[in-house]
Amino acid sequence: MAEALTLHEDPRSGNCYKIKLTAALLGLPLATRAYDIMQGETRTPEFLATVNANGRIPVLQIDASEGARFLPESNAACWYLAHRSALVPQERFAQADMLRWMFFEQYNHEPNVATLRFWRHFVGEANLSEQQRGQITAKHLAGCAALDLMNRHLAQSAFFCGDTLSLADIALFAYTHVADEGGFALGDHPHILAWIARVQAAPGFVPMQ
Amino acid sequence: MAEALTLHEDPRSGNCYKIKLTAALLGLPLATRAYDIMQGETRTPEFLATVNANGRIPVLQIDASEGARFLPESNAACWYLAHRSALVPQERFAQADMLRWMFFEQYNHEPNVATLRFWRHFVGEANLSEQQRGQITAKHLAGCAALDLMNRHLAQSAFFCGDTLSLADIALFAYTHVADEGGFALGDHPHILAWIARVQAAPGFVPMQ
Repeated sequence: MAEALTLHEDPRSGNCYKIKLTAALLGLPLATRAYDIMQGETRTPEFLATVNANGRIPVLQIDASEGARFLPESNAACWYLAHRSALVPQERFAQADMLRWMFFEQYNHEPNVATLRFWRHFVGEANLSEQQRGQITAKHLAGCAALDLMNRHLAQSAFFCGDTLSLADIALFAYTHVADEGGFALGDHPHILAWIARVQAAPGFVPMQ
Repeated sequence: MAEALTLHEDPRSGNCYKIKLTAALLGLPLATRAYDIMQGETRTPEFLATVNANGRIPVLQIDASEGARFLPESNAACWYLAHRSALVPQERFAQADMLRWMFFEQYNHEPNVATLRFWRHFVGEANLSEQQRGQITAKHLAGCAALDLMNRHLAQSAFFCGDTLSLADIALFAYTHVADEGGFALGDHPHILAWIARVQAAPGFVPMQ
């Protein structure tokens, strides 16, 4: 297994941070190559032809004897890294339930919590299009619903899949712990705040840049 | 493994169809219980308390000796059903790459292709809110981009993960084969059309209702 791992990333992206956190918790060396998505650096012909035809980061590059392979989608890259590790439950239902929270993250959480953070914290409200501005209320409400569901789940469980940290926690931690940058107040979600502290206390934890 | 499987579904939903198609291809008996999402039947206090606190279908109910367990998120339910079957590649990269397409489906495809089908085919454009109407163009362009990426990938590969059908194909087939109902023309995507025919030819295939 003499393989080298490189993350094509934008350091501001929570989706990229998920992969760096997974690698850190597992003690895996991970090189990085940074792109500025605000400057269109992931839409160049070279990037589209070699790294990801979908024009997005993160992409995990895996260099091994058989050549370089590229894996887009943050949660799929985490899955690859965590293969046969304690971050993935092996019991059939628990494993499916972990993926359930990771799909929830990409469908119910990221398009709302992460998008509003990007718009408000990096783009700036004054620079949004009319069409983007028209979606702020709906995305705020949908993000609040996702956070509320998480808070209620965490009232009964230390982590998303029981008593131990899994990829579901990493996936949901990335944008939740900076949700205030998207205009979400975590103060009324005490179980999320306690869970954030538990994730941060995990051996090997690294903060987002 | 004396477990009974019940799908909480709306028969019009492609997300529910994914699970029924997976069960059919694997020869697994699957009972169904239908809800009308247009009538709010997945937002009742009983549904929220017992089936899914997120108020959505599909949910796979698994009844076994230890009691009933509920698994939301279509792709997670497919993962559960396909445990150790030929629908999930076991090689490390291939398995992560299959999940990559399933996350792509939930992030880049479903919110555009499926949402426009729902709005145009079931709700009706005349009944859309101003805010929904304002998103039609962006969702159409994003859906076209997802279909274009799929078409280019399928120019080089019989199925999404090589030569055999996997859960990635099931996840992407569900809303792609009815994309015309959302206003997407598949005629200029010949590789998608050929792939649709390959999926439909799989032993055990069942059509969407």
